[in-house]
Amino acid sequence: MARQLYELVGRDPARPFSPYCWRARMALAHKGLDAACIPWRFTETDRLAFARHDKVPVLVDGDTVVADSWAIAEYLDRTCPEAPLLGAAAPHIRLIAAWVDHTLHGALIRLVVSDIFTLLDEPAASYFRASREARLGARLEAVTADREGRLPAFRTLLQPLRVALRAGPFLGGAAPDYADYAVFGAFQWARVVSKLVLVEDVDPIHPWLERMLGLFGGLAGAVPARG
Amino acid sequence: MARQLYELVGRDPARPFSPYCWRARMALAHKGLDAACIPWRFTETDRLAFARHDKVPVLVDGDTVVADSWAIAEYLDRTCPEAPLLGAAAPHIRLIAAWVDHTLHGALIRLVVSDIFTLLDEPAASYFRASREARLGARLEAVTADREGRLPAFRTLLQPLRVALRAGPFLGGAAPDYADYAVFGAFQWARVVSKLVLVEDVDPIHPWLERMLGLFGGLAGAVPARG
Repeated sequence: MARQLYELVGRDPARPFSPYCWRARMALAHKGLDAACIPWRFTETDRLAFARHDKVPVLVDGDTVVADSWAIAEYLDRTCPEAPLLGAAAPHIRLIAAWVDHTLHGALIRLVVSDIFTLLDEPAASYFRASREARLGARLEAVTADREGRLPAFRTLLQPLRVALRAGPFLGGAAPDYADYAVFGAFQWARVVSKLVLVEDVDPIHPWLERMLGLFGGLAGAVPARG
Repeated sequence: MARQLYELVGRDPARPFSPYCWRARMALAHKGLDAACIPWRFTETDRLAFARHDKVPVLVDGDTVVADSWAIAEYLDRTCPEAPLLGAAAPHIRLIAAWVDHTLHGALIRLVVSDIFTLLDEPAASYFRASREARLGARLEAVTADREGRLPAFRTLLQPLRVALRAGPFLGGAAPDYADYAVFGAFQWARVVSKLVLVEDVDPIHPWLERMLGLFGGLAGAVPARG
């Protein structure tokens, strides 16, 4: 059976946008592995029952089913030990990924949540609006209304990336590793769903983003930015 | 010549409190190295002229002078390669340390800055008040007036630590490394200068803090918490 990756999409199955799915997609490519994209939409939890999980990414590799992006990274390192994603830095990358989950994603959702809504068809759209408005405590359009004003604060949160990138071209050093993919997932999410310019051209993060978009024959860059 | 570490103190030379000096002190102990504490106070920049630097920590190791906590960690790994502080995870620990510098220290200074002032004699006290009030845009006592109310937000910032500590006893995994020392420096700083309870007993960060205070024969724990 060919390898399959369940990835979150909206109306357009060719534009996966979940940051966690991008971590898994980049991790597979890091190992030189391909996987058919199985488009998955919010509310299609029944379709993941086989994985005993309710969220994507889910990787199906022959008889093996692995849910959760971190578990996928560990699985790939276990089954393809060459070019480790995590290696000796696994505990540190876990902390970095958790920082992305909590701090960067928490700030980003407040910048792009109304853009995500416009990518969705029913019933995903209604589910998304209801669940996110409950979580964020406001109408999606109200959450993002003043987003331009919050961009400077968001860019300040990125300062650890700028410091780390002084030492080398990737967060993993000379070559990318899962730290890069965990952080890149956040930017790719925003790029696919929103026109908002998160990082200015003069920002030292910008050339790193360009490098990430170009990796693996331009895998991530091939999905167009929101037009 | 015996090894010497210039460390920031206030009135009491036995209570070094700089988070960066604690990084260096713990890094030395990690390598099994001792160093005499040379107490240094704000405004004594002349005494660091030999290091061509204006801040502590400064390590003097025979004929070698190393300023800056990160440079000290790199120096120790270069000269004592066993039990690496950074090792293969150096780029990731650089990012984690920068997160501590920018996010944790930035939040902590607004919780404890008025406590630090009360530990200082002149002329350090006047220098500290003037420079920190200019930086923070308010009287020191006004900055910390509502600090109890800001504790929940501070504790939320620590979430990446809780996630990382699910996987092992230290941020470095089974054993502590410089990621632990970089984060611990922030907590030790607050512990030495302030009575404020940053982390509740039930917090999964609490047992890690206890472990850190107990390392190296209780090196950090031997400096009493602010009474």
